[in-house]
Amino acid sequence: MTAPFAAVDVIIAKRDGRELTAAQIDWVIAAYTRQQVAEEQMSALLMAILLNGMSSAEIAHWTSAMLNSGIRLDLSGLGRPTVDKHSTGGVGDKISLPLAPLVAACGAAVPQLSGRGLGHTGGTLDKMESILGWRATLTPAEMTAQLASVGAVICAASADLAPADRKLYALRDVTGTVESIPMIAASIMSKKIAEGTSSLVLDVKVGSGAFMKRADHAAELARTMVELGAREGVRTSALLTDMSTPLGVAVGNAIEVAESVEVLAGGGPADVVGLTLVLAREMVALAGLDVDPAAVLASGRAMDSWRAMVAAQGGDPDAALPTPRFREFVVADRAGVVSRLDALAVGIASWRLGAGRARREHAVQQAAGILCLAKPGDSVSVGQPLFELHTDTPERFPLALADLADALHIAAQGTVIERPPLVLDVIRGG
Amino acid sequence: MTAPFAAVDVIIAKRDGRELTAAQIDWVIAAYTRQQVAEEQMSALLMAILLNGMSSAEIAHWTSAMLNSGIRLDLSGLGRPTVDKHSTGGVGDKISLPLAPLVAACGAAVPQLSGRGLGHTGGTLDKMESILGWRATLTPAEMTAQLASVGAVICAASADLAPADRKLYALRDVTGTVESIPMIAASIMSKKIAEGTSSLVLDVKVGSGAFMKRADHAAELARTMVELGAREGVRTSALLTDMSTPLGVAVGNAIEVAESVEVLAGGGPADVVGLTLVLAREMVALAGLDVDPAAVLASGRAMDSWRAMVAAQGGDPDAALPTPRFREFVVADRAGVVSRLDALAVGIASWRLGAGRARREHAVQQAAGILCLAKPGDSVSVGQPLFELHTDTPERFPLALADLADALHIAAQGTVIERPPLVLDVIRGG
Repeated sequence: MTAPFAAVDVIIAKRDGRELTAAQIDWVIAAYTRQQVAEEQMSALLMAILLNGMSSAEIAHWTSAMLNSGIRLDLSGLGRPTVDKHSTGGVGDKISLPLAPLVAACGAAVPQLSGRGLGHTGGTLDKMESILGWRATLTPAEMTAQLASVGAVICAASADLAPADRKLYALRDVTGTVESIPMIAASIMSKKIAEGTSSLVLDVKVGSGAFMKRADHAAELARTMVELGAREGVRTSALLTDMSTPLGVAVGNAIEVAESVEVLAGGGPADVVGLTLVLAREMVALAGLDVDPAAVLASGRAMDSWRAMVAAQGGDPDAALPTPRFREFVVADRAGVVSRLDALAVGIASWRLGAGRARREHAVQQAAGILCLAKPGDSVSVGQPLFELHTDTPERFPLALADLADALHIAAQGTVIERPPLVLDVIRGG
Repeated sequence: MTAPFAAVDVIIAKRDGRELTAAQIDWVIAAYTRQQVAEEQMSALLMAILLNGMSSAEIAHWTSAMLNSGIRLDLSGLGRPTVDKHSTGGVGDKISLPLAPLVAACGAAVPQLSGRGLGHTGGTLDKMESILGWRATLTPAEMTAQLASVGAVICAASADLAPADRKLYALRDVTGTVESIPMIAASIMSKKIAEGTSSLVLDVKVGSGAFMKRADHAAELARTMVELGAREGVRTSALLTDMSTPLGVAVGNAIEVAESVEVLAGGGPADVVGLTLVLAREMVALAGLDVDPAAVLASGRAMDSWRAMVAAQGGDPDAALPTPRFREFVVADRAGVVSRLDALAVGIASWRLGAGRARREHAVQQAAGILCLAKPGDSVSVGQPLFELHTDTPERFPLALADLADALHIAAQGTVIERPPLVLDVIRGG
C-alpha cells in the first residue's frame, strides 16, 4: 500500500506557511508513531511549526491525532465526578500533593497522572518517591480501583496514553523545538484528555521560574489549552499564576512533601495554602460539587485522604522522610527587606544540589534541595539565614552557592515591596 | 573531552535569529560529519537556517567548514590554467559536453566533476554513460593525468571532496530543506573549490525548468556564490540564463550526446551553440587566455579534444549511440506559431519516459527522452510533429503524453513571439 502523503511534502507545506489539513496531520502523527516518518523529518517539521505557527484548527487536529495514537481511559463508571489539575511547572510547586487529596475529600475523583522532573522544575513523582515504600507505577485497573475507593491517585502515566507525545517530547528536547506554544498545548492536553478526566484546571505559571517567562505567552498557551479541552468535551479552566519567586519555603523532594503535609495539617506557608485553595475551588466548581475546600481542609478530612492515598500505593505516611547528609547556609550580609527572590536561580541551585536530574536516566537525591528562609517582603537582619542548602554530595555546594549569589536582593529597611498577586488571570471555557 | 558546544544550543541560536559564530559552525559541521551531531538535530538546524537565513559571514564559514571536512585537490602543477563551469541544472542542458573539450582546445584545463540526475533535470554523468565503454569514475591520479594530457575531464566527484556536503545533501533532500539559497550556494561552492579549479563560471538557470523560478532568487544565489569564490581565492563569474524553455532540441541522455557532437562538428541548435560560446568566452577570459572559442570550434580542434577525452575514459567516440525501442509523436492540432514551450513539463515528461530517476539507486534508460521539434517562434502547420517521445518501456507513454498536454502553446499565425535573451545578466567578482 502506498502512503497517502510524502513526509517531505507535509514539511514543505508548513515551511512555506500553508495550513496543514486534518488528513495530513493524522497521517504524519500516525506514521511517525509507527516509525514510517523518520526522526529527522519530524524534527524539520517541528522547527517549521515552531517558526511558522499553527492555526487553532491545526492545533486541534494535532492534539486529536496524538490522542488517537494511544488509548483513552474511561473513568465514567466511578460514581464520582472526575477532575484533574495540571501545572506547567514551577520552583517549589508541590501543590498537587495537598490538592489531590483535598479535592478527593470534597467528593471528586482526581486522576493525577504525573511526570518526573527534568531541568530546574521538580517532578511530582520524584517528590512522592521520598515517601518510604510508595510506588509511582499502577496498572489502569489499580488506578481505577484507587479512584473509586480513595478518590485520589498520583501515579505515572501509562505508556499507552498518547505514545506519539512521548516520542515527540524526546525529539523536541534535543532539537531546540520545545518552545512552541501549539506543541506545548497539544502535548499537555493530549495526555490529560487521554487519562479520562471530565474536567481539568490548568495552572499556567508565568515568571522567571516558569517555562513561560512572559504573561502574553502564558495567556496564549492557556487560551489554546482551554479551547482544546472544550473541543474534546473536557470542561477546562486555566489560572495564570505567578512564578517569579518560589512557591512556599521548600524547594526539593522530601522537603516539599513535608511542607505539603504541613498544609494538610492546617499549617504551611500562606502562598501554598492560598494557591491550593484557589485551585481546589475551581476544580470543585467544574466538578459540580457544592463544597467549601477551606472547610474540608480545616476538618482534617484532606489529611485522611492523603494518608489513604499514600498507603494505597504502598507508602507509609508515618515514616520519617529522608534527611540530607550535609547542610550549608547563606546568611544576610546586610539588614533590610527582601525585595526579590528569583525562582529560576533557586530552581537551578536546587537542581545542582541533586534534587533534579540533568538526564532522563539519572536518579534524584530525595533529601536534596533548598529552604527559602526569607521571602519577598520579609525583614532580615545581618547574619540571619536566607537559604538552607541540603545535599548528600557536598562537592555540589560551590556551584549551588554561585547560582544563589544574585538570587536574593535586600532593599533598605522600610522599602515597600510590591508583590504580584498569586493569580494573575483566570481563563474559562465558553 | 567535552564538546565545546551543545548541538541544541546552536539550533536554538539560529531558531531565535542570532548569527552563528565561526567556531559554532566549524564545530557543528565537523561533529555532524563524525556523526556526533544527530541527523534529527542537523535537520532542525537546516530548517531554522532555511526560515531565518544566514549572513554573508555565516555562509562563508559554513562553506569553508564543508570544504575542510575533506581534501582539496591541488591542480597547480598542470602547466595550464584551470577553469570549470557549473550549471544549477536545466532541461536539455548538455552544455558541459561540448564546452569542456572546447575550452580545453583553447588551452585551459577543465576539471568538470559532475553528478547524476535526480528529478526532472538530467545529470551529465548519465548522459555520458550512453557512450559505449565510457566510465565516470577516475582516481585523482587518473584525473590529473588526463587534465595534463587531454585538458578536459568529465567524471564523478571523489567521496573525499566535501563529504559533509554529501551527507547534508541527502538529509536536505528528505527534510524539505533543499530550497535555501545559503545552503545551495555553500553546497555548490564547497565542491567546486575542493576540486582545485583556479577559476569558475557559474551558469545560474532561471525559469520554469530551473531550480530557481524567480530572477531575484537566482541573482541572489549568483551573487552569494561569486562572493564565496572570491573569499576562497577562486576567480568566479556567474551568468543568469533563461530556462523557461528547453535548451536545444534533445532532452534525454543519448540524444543529448548526439546533439553535443553536432555542436562540436559545427552544427547543432543555435541556442546550444550560443550558450556554449558565451560560457567558453567567460571561462577563457577568467583563465587569462587570449583565444576566440568560436574560431577554435570552427577549426575542429574542440572535436579532437572531445574524442580524446571520451577515449581517455574508455569510451568509443565512433560507437553508435543507443536507440529507443519505442517512439511516439505529438502533432500540432492547429496551424500557427509556437508561443510557449514549457521546460518543466518537458523535463518531467522525459523523466517519466525513463531518462531520469525517481530514486538515487535507480538506473536511467540511455535511449529515453524527447525531441522538441518545434521551439518558440517556429511556425507549425496542422499535423506537423511537435514532440518525438523515446522510451524502452511503452507503458510510460500515457503519463508522459499527459505531462506534455499543456506544454506547448500555438498562437495565431503572424503573432510576434518575444523570447527572453539567453543570458539575462552577468555577475562578476570585485
